[in-house]
Amino acid sequence: MLYEITIPQFTKMLNNLNKILDKAAANADGRKFESTVLLQSRLAPDQFNFIRQIQIACDTAKLCASRLSGKEAPVQADTEATMAELKARIESVITYLGTFTKDDFNGAEERHISQPRWEGKYVTGYEYALQHALPNIYFHITTAYSILRHNGVDIGKKDYLGEMPYKK
Amino acid sequence: MLYEITIPQFTKMLNNLNKILDKAAANADGRKFESTVLLQSRLAPDQFNFIRQIQIACDTAKLCASRLSGKEAPVQADTEATMAELKARIESVITYLGTFTKDDFNGAEERHISQPRWEGKYVTGYEYALQHALPNIYFHITTAYSILRHNGVDIGKKDYLGEMPYKK
Repeated sequence: MLYEITIPQFTKMLNNLNKILDKAAANADGRKFESTVLLQSRLAPDQFNFIRQIQIACDTAKLCASRLSGKEAPVQADTEATMAELKARIESVITYLGTFTKDDFNGAEERHISQPRWEGKYVTGYEYALQHALPNIYFHITTAYSILRHNGVDIGKKDYLGEMPYKK
Repeated sequence: MLYEITIPQFTKMLNNLNKILDKAAANADGRKFESTVLLQSRLAPDQFNFIRQIQIACDTAKLCASRLSGKEAPVQADTEATMAELKARIESVITYLGTFTKDDFNGAEERHISQPRWEGKYVTGYEYALQHALPNIYFHITTAYSILRHNGVDIGKKDYLGEMPYKK
């Protein structure tokens, strides 16, 4: 079950995010400023900038897959400085998520999940997916989206949600 | 399964949001301005203000429970103009979510879910929960949070995520 509620939807959201970055780059071109201005923007002086929001969204997806399956995740250096590099980061995580199958998540619900800052404490895989990974990825994608909206990039809720599988 | 991934976590997030509103009110008091200034704030001129973000977050939770269970939801008038009224709205939805049981969600995954703006099209309950309700509630709570952060309210990620069920 945890595979179902994380990997396909994380993949979809990262693809949506990738297209939002294209719109941001096109908007900067059209308004004749460097897109790096957007990448360095933030909504509060003590909040992470756009680049860091994307890196954390990517890591949230990558580490969720890695931790729930018990597989080692590739380390990434957080050196992205351009829109193209951020898109490559997103695409690398989409590719990584694509390497997982439902079987990789056998036993994930009961697995003990921890991370360094939790100082030895853990939560179950079920709790981690529902109460940590999901709210976190949406938090960082929405914050990145809001940084662009605040700076006048013409994006809307549909760009965030992506295509819905409507039926008639 | 859809009960599990929506109702308990939506309830938790609305409780977290309720406490964030308390912090916003206390911050406005401390800095000696009316908290209605925060309620009317937004991050872009063509984006919904704080009040509307909270109303939509509340409706996303309420309508998700209602639609997945096939039960009629109480109509709410969207007339909140003060922090106290917004908190009462949040609390009313928390109470409403508390009236549901797992059994109410029998068959929810295959249920056809629609809303007026979809013009007769539908998605399954499973698709609706994963691809619509969850990303939407996090979107509006995060946007409300970002409006406060942008205006200098001293809140952090822990206020958004709430308590994690750590074990040793």
